[in-house]
Amino acid sequence: MAEGSDDIQALIGAMARLPGLGPRSARRIVLSLIGRKPGQMAQLSALMTRVAETARPCTRCGNISDREICPICADPARQTGEICVVESVADLWALERGRAFRGRYHVLGGTLSALDEIGPEDLGIPRLLARLEAEQVSEVILALNATIEGQTTAHYIADALPDGLSVTGLAQGVPIGGELDYLDDGTITAALRARRRF
Amino acid sequence: MAEGSDDIQALIGAMARLPGLGPRSARRIVLSLIGRKPGQMAQLSALMTRVAETARPCTRCGNISDREICPICADPARQTGEICVVESVADLWALERGRAFRGRYHVLGGTLSALDEIGPEDLGIPRLLARLEAEQVSEVILALNATIEGQTTAHYIADALPDGLSVTGLAQGVPIGGELDYLDDGTITAALRARRRF
Repeated sequence: MAEGSDDIQALIGAMARLPGLGPRSARRIVLSLIGRKPGQMAQLSALMTRVAETARPCTRCGNISDREICPICADPARQTGEICVVESVADLWALERGRAFRGRYHVLGGTLSALDEIGPEDLGIPRLLARLEAEQVSEVILALNATIEGQTTAHYIADALPDGLSVTGLAQGVPIGGELDYLDDGTITAALRARRRF
Repeated sequence: MAEGSDDIQALIGAMARLPGLGPRSARRIVLSLIGRKPGQMAQLSALMTRVAETARPCTRCGNISDREICPICADPARQTGEICVVESVADLWALERGRAFRGRYHVLGGTLSALDEIGPEDLGIPRLLARLEAEQVSEVILALNATIEGQTTAHYIADALPDGLSVTGLAQGVPIGGELDYLDDGTITAALRARRRF
């Protein structure tokens, strides 16, 4: 047994299965935790227990928080007329960091996939349609990833939305700080087509 | 508050401070843990608590295990006459995975550094010298990293060791599977100088 003890090996194994980690990075993390001041690992583990007990998806939008209705849905200062549809909670958090959107969200939790048998119900699309009337929504922003799966799903949702609603998508173009020489042809073409007055 | 709840934010913050992780990868890990079957995160946190309580350095060699004397030092089948000196517990585990060495180890826990005020005592070098007689050591293998700091420390230890002892270092050369075209000049030169009969 090279790695210390059964528990240490089990911890390294569990860590190695986390996304983005592998055996080498898990070993490094566990050794660094063991080498730190006693209490730091206990603190991390206590936090984890608390989050495991309290974290749950918002019954309205699917965002993760410790409440049944997440702080964004519960915030009366957020506009109710706009719903921004995202693939994942991570995407919702990314948009929130930008502080540009003041409406509410709808988290799909994935994209449509015939291969993986993921249909509209699995993505909560009927639930989204039900929210439109209940929340008097006038604009739906389809902020899905600019991938084939994301855009296919966006087109499906756009078709399913009732008429008379404003349906928009994120602009495509050169990212801030982007250098043309390093961008793919598709992005350059899209940015050129959507060019605007300087 | 973009990231769910105070506890979730604190957990992401603590994760982001682990070696090799940052805010983005920590967020991804925490969201994946929340999204998994309930109980998986609790399991990970329970493992962490147990390791935090039991993991400790071997009083003899510095290896991490859950005992005062680590399984390697306690194993009567391991040769006592050879001590392999390594910089870190991670290096010890890497050597153990190779299964080539059947003696015992001595973990320095770093390298000599005037800048960081790390002297021979901080690295347990006096403790290493004390072990030589107690364990009737005939060979010391200096398996330190092939960096300037590692080799400086190796030279210091070699000078401090008593005469009559066999002191060796790891061979330098082309790594298994290595392509000459991608190797640095120093390694190629070292491999050529230490060439052996085919």
